[in-house]
Amino acid sequence: MSSMYLGNLKISLFGQSHGKGIGVVIDGLPAGEKVDMDALQAFMQRRAPGNSDVSTPRKESDVPNILSGLTDGVTCGAPLCAVFENTNTRSSDYDRLKNVPRPGHADYTAQVKFCGFQDAAGGGHFSGRLTAPLTFAGGICKQILERRGIAVGAHLLSVGNVRDAGFDPVSVTAKQVLLPGSKPFPVLSDEAGEQMRESILRAKAMGDSLGGIIECACVGVPAGWGDPMLDGMENRLSRILFAIPAVKGVAFGDGFEAAVSAGSVQNDAYYIEESAVKCRTNHAGGILGGITNGMPVLFRCAIKPTPSIALRQESVNLASMECEMLEIGGRHDPCIAPRAVPVVEAAASIALLDAWMGEKMYKKA
Amino acid sequence: MSSMYLGNLKISLFGQSHGKGIGVVIDGLPAGEKVDMDALQAFMQRRAPGNSDVSTPRKESDVPNILSGLTDGVTCGAPLCAVFENTNTRSSDYDRLKNVPRPGHADYTAQVKFCGFQDAAGGGHFSGRLTAPLTFAGGICKQILERRGIAVGAHLLSVGNVRDAGFDPVSVTAKQVLLPGSKPFPVLSDEAGEQMRESILRAKAMGDSLGGIIECACVGVPAGWGDPMLDGMENRLSRILFAIPAVKGVAFGDGFEAAVSAGSVQNDAYYIEESAVKCRTNHAGGILGGITNGMPVLFRCAIKPTPSIALRQESVNLASMECEMLEIGGRHDPCIAPRAVPVVEAAASIALLDAWMGEKMYKKA
Amino acid sequence: MSSMYLGNLKISLFGQSHGKGIGVVIDGLPAGEKVDMDALQAFMQRRAPGNSDVSTPRKESDVPNILSGLTDGVTCGAPLCAVFENTNTRSSDYDRLKNVPRPGHADYTAQVKFCGFQDAAGGGHFSGRLTAPLTFAGGICKQILERRGIAVGAHLLSVGNVRDAGFDPVSVTAKQVLLPGSKPFPVLSDEAGEQMRESILRAKAMGDSLGGIIECACVGVPAGWGDPMLDGMENRLSRILFAIPAVKGVAFGDGFEAAVSAGSVQNDAYYIEESAVKCRTNHAGGILGGITNGMPVLFRCAIKPTPSIALRQESVNLASMECEMLEIGGRHDPCIAPRAVPVVEAAASIALLDAWMGEKMYKKA
Amino acid sequence: MSSMYLGNLKISLFGQSHGKGIGVVIDGLPAGEKVDMDALQAFMQRRAPGNSDVSTPRKESDVPNILSGLTDGVTCGAPLCAVFENTNTRSSDYDRLKNVPRPGHADYTAQVKFCGFQDAAGGGHFSGRLTAPLTFAGGICKQILERRGIAVGAHLLSVGNVRDAGFDPVSVTAKQVLLPGSKPFPVLSDEAGEQMRESILRAKAMGDSLGGIIECACVGVPAGWGDPMLDGMENRLSRILFAIPAVKGVAFGDGFEAAVSAGSVQNDAYYIEESAVKCRTNHAGGILGGITNGMPVLFRCAIKPTPSIALRQESVNLASMECEMLEIGGRHDPCIAPRAVPVVEAAASIALLDAWMGEKMYKKA
Repeated sequence: MSSMYLGNLKISLFGQSHGKGIGVVIDGLPAGEKVDMDALQAFMQRRAPGNSDVSTPRKESDVPNILSGLTDGVTCGAPLCAVFENTNTRSSDYDRLKNVPRPGHADYTAQVKFCGFQDAAGGGHFSGRLTAPLTFAGGICKQILERRGIAVGAHLLSVGNVRDAGFDPVSVTAKQVLLPGSKPFPVLSDEAGEQMRESILRAKAMGDSLGGIIECACVGVPAGWGDPMLDGMENRLSRILFAIPAVKGVAFGDGFEAAVSAGSVQNDAYYIEESAVKCRTNHAGGILGGITNGMPVLFRCAIKPTPSIALRQESVNLASMECEMLEIGGRHDPCIAPRAVPVVEAAASIALLDAWMGEKMYKKA
Repeated sequence: MSSMYLGNLKISLFGQSHGKGIGVVIDGLPAGEKVDMDALQAFMQRRAPGNSDVSTPRKESDVPNILSGLTDGVTCGAPLCAVFENTNTRSSDYDRLKNVPRPGHADYTAQVKFCGFQDAAGGGHFSGRLTAPLTFAGGICKQILERRGIAVGAHLLSVGNVRDAGFDPVSVTAKQVLLPGSKPFPVLSDEAGEQMRESILRAKAMGDSLGGIIECACVGVPAGWGDPMLDGMENRLSRILFAIPAVKGVAFGDGFEAAVSAGSVQNDAYYIEESAVKCRTNHAGGILGGITNGMPVLFRCAIKPTPSIALRQESVNLASMECEMLEIGGRHDPCIAPRAVPVVEAAASIALLDAWMGEKMYKKA
Repeated sequence: MSSMYLGNLKISLFGQSHGKGIGVVIDGLPAGEKVDMDALQAFMQRRAPGNSDVSTPRKESDVPNILSGLTDGVTCGAPLCAVFENTNTRSSDYDRLKNVPRPGHADYTAQVKFCGFQDAAGGGHFSGRLTAPLTFAGGICKQILERRGIAVGAHLLSVGNVRDAGFDPVSVTAKQVLLPGSKPFPVLSDEAGEQMRESILRAKAMGDSLGGIIECACVGVPAGWGDPMLDGMENRLSRILFAIPAVKGVAFGDGFEAAVSAGSVQNDAYYIEESAVKCRTNHAGGILGGITNGMPVLFRCAIKPTPSIALRQESVNLASMECEMLEIGGRHDPCIAPRAVPVVEAAASIALLDAWMGEKMYKKA
Repeated sequence: MSSMYLGNLKISLFGQSHGKGIGVVIDGLPAGEKVDMDALQAFMQRRAPGNSDVSTPRKESDVPNILSGLTDGVTCGAPLCAVFENTNTRSSDYDRLKNVPRPGHADYTAQVKFCGFQDAAGGGHFSGRLTAPLTFAGGICKQILERRGIAVGAHLLSVGNVRDAGFDPVSVTAKQVLLPGSKPFPVLSDEAGEQMRESILRAKAMGDSLGGIIECACVGVPAGWGDPMLDGMENRLSRILFAIPAVKGVAFGDGFEAAVSAGSVQNDAYYIEESAVKCRTNHAGGILGGITNGMPVLFRCAIKPTPSIALRQESVNLASMECEMLEIGGRHDPCIAPRAVPVVEAAASIALLDAWMGEKMYKKA
């Protein structure tokens, strides 16, 4: 069992959706790093529910109570622990669900895994709410990276069948990657965003939900970050991205499109510009052999449709072992992808800061 | 730096393409497990080069020299180390390449990472040859799993634009998942396979290369394997799958297609069959919240086209920092995907055995 | 950096002495284990300050606020987080000390380690207060072990020059190892205890402090726990015991006395009793090759004298880089060894539960 | 199970005493470090058997076959694997012992641990022979440290009841710590050494064996190395020192003597010398709060008497479960402590290099 990210940076996530609180311990942050709490709160707000008509009207407290690791707003070298109280929980929504697992959720698998002792309310430890401390941790990493000229930004590449343009894989700038996150709806083209919102509202009206694809770019990452084989950037990133509950696919650069392409296309040609090695294209997503090549690091995540839908569904009663129809009450996101955008940025920031630490470690001195 | 898989099972990979030898240490295998060396050798042979007209004519020694961990063919509990000698290396092929990195390979990133001290010959530690010890380790795990009723099998879902049918996500059997691996070309439909081979030969004739998609199914995995958040089956599997050099994307169940789907479709409905909980569909690929649900575990990997192509390419000379055209000699696979099929099975077997060990550990006793 | 115990069980400790709170996340506890909160509180009370005339009159809140991991007092499989609020802190005691490191404390080393950004108040993250969450975590492990017939108990073997008898290494019983912990002063012989108390009060009166030796026995541990080389019971135990601030030595069985002994004495002879393998003596402390042999696991820890003493001491001013005399105010333990006894039990319980989990994992199934 | 040292540096040890070979993989060595093979071989020779009349006349091949990680004698960044062939094994010596465990050895515990599948010959994976690859790995670390002005040296502080002087804890120099290792018998005073040798020969003549204490000093370690709580220098060092089979106790600075001392004595007073912070004494062994303070790092290990003795011993037959007397043939060291001296240096060098890497990682940049 490990709800821990264990690299050079070590992060421990805890909490259940309807327990007393959730939170995170970040062990290994360098000392002397300022944390801009306003910027961090604004970053977390992008993930928070209740912001718009396409997200759940549920309100959650996303204000961290930082117990340790900061002195006068600066990291002191000791592990940083932040706790988020759980408020506004409505456990009665879930009472009936205890024995009737919601399709698409982890209710059934948690029950088997924990021999029936799992905390079922609100999805327990498997709740999307656990992305709040993940976002908090990643938000701090993001600030540390930004001070070193590295910008991590993501946007909705698609929602359902509506597709936006992607980042330019070669020339995308820090300003461009940060732009979508500054908008109420994290897209490049607001027109595409409007269509996405309409699709979501349509799905919601039908008691259904939609998925989407998030594209993320990391600009300013020098060549040489990451390690061979098991600790390459792709390994690190995918490992943490799949910790986001709805992610079902992760692809770097051209990803699955590389599979229908040719080597003569995929091989990014090198050239020299201003005494630096550059690539003319970026089909590799800035990573070769697990190690960054100095081009923007680019990847996409597939987000599945929210499993909580209003439509009546077929399930089973685990007590009686009989089939049982299920209707899920409560208030849910008809599409979780918009709120997942900052979580993806946070996950990427953690993996990058981890690689940065490793990079320092292995340099000869 | 870590060329190690560090879970309940701990695996350390070492070696460079043209060094004295490559190999693996597997730490944590349960004692008392028989290793069928013939079956293991046959499994490794599926990865070995030189088997067919669509793979490189290069011959490599894939015969492991097992130094420790086995007594009379049975695991003795001590770490198992296997070494593969490097023979038939032709370093002169690479001599000129030392300062001129091959596009699409890790030559340049390794040079930056290791400050110019990397072993450049044949790709060094980043060579695809390192998948030999990975396949060896996974082959042992696969045997242990098979004795417990779990079958891991993969096949080419596509090569270039040629696509084969996929496994039936609900009813696929052990026999079906093992079938492609028993064929000279690992496909479900031999007709599709013939077209794939033709595509590959066409690309080869043009001095180019092709990518492909590998689909893998794990049948017989009980519900409850895997752990929350960072150690879910998706996290474990993706982390090790991205250790295979050419993999650029990993997707579970419907993967990126889930992103254009609806919750009412993606939610796999539960029902009872023979007193067991089953799902009517398997869009989730057998994993919910990172934990297996008893359905077949299903995923796909995108394999990029082999970066070694005969066509003339644009590169740079890292010594003179000037542009330089590059022609790669040597003997290379015009499509690496067929040989990567057993490697994917091996990687999946390692992640599964790791989860099996964890499963035993967390059970109350 | 890692204030984490990372074995099969994963424990993350956080907090600074005078920060908002300190605490612990325990990741990997088996689900379905009852936690007896009264027993746990009583166990923690043994470590708490302010209990007697030989400990500091300082009062600390040692009441855990359990945020996650428990449902109705039973572990639910999710990480268990407990937080202890910091109250009754008197930072002014430490204000002057910021630039003048206390000899024997980690003030100076923390300053160097964290480049001057450390939280100096009360010793920050290096404070003995951090043993509260460690004791909490170990207390839970201890209960789980006790339900499986394993008793972990420690006592003061010596304080200064006063020495008590030790446990009988061969025939010590669960009842005997638990007895000292049930007394106000954790000794075997109350007469020796009285002399120890007198020694401590004498040192206190002189503005000085004393050290001591703690002996710990683990009764009921079956043969076969632990792993070879780096994960033997001695490695696991010592790694966590040295996390207790004042511990300067750890020895198993005869320990340093084995060094002046002969093989013919040290080798514990085997014999059969009631169809079980037993040893006639227990010089090895129940561990051979890192693995338990079924005899009581026995070890001792050297506890150095509390570095906080009232006597005037020579130090330096790190700002002016000049010598400066130092008098430490505040309220301190003249001998920390009595309060460290339950911490040693806690540390041992964590290492043992970790080994128990590993034991389950590697058994063939 | 883990015969791995897993810190910033990752080391995997493998092999059984009488298997094909033993060895080590070192993952994470910085690239560009020269390995002086002659010096390394000389270092290993100090551990090798057959060197003198107080060690076993058994000859072992201690010549490493380096398979990877070095290019032209310089680390290339890839994992370094070295294999030592097993030659001159005389398995018949052990044949009878299969079911009759040698007291003081891991024969019985290995049998329980590995369910009877262990490789019993020569102690299998638990053999002292496994210290050869450990010494090899540490020898490389030692060279890297020496280039940075850090000297690691150890000597026999005592053998049986014969005691030598110790290093001066404050003023010991690099030259002094390296001196004992340059002698045929690693002591400070050759006179004491002669008495030790006589004691050993006396014990040998009686068919018995002796223990000893090894003292190690690390000179030139800057302040600030190590991490809080679980990754302090004491935790790291003890964890790896207890991987040396005969070590039964580890103590830092005054160690167990600190327990009978007073705070006013143990607290090492600070002063300023040449603009640097120094301590007037070094009772702490150069470590406070787990972190180095710039004074020499000093510790001692208790080495138990070799369990292999010629005297007739009481054991049991695990097949028949009856008592059985045992006489051990073969050729054994009457005192293993002299040969363990370089192994202790190697272990310390690994822990220090690991801390050095961490130090670089956590520095702000």
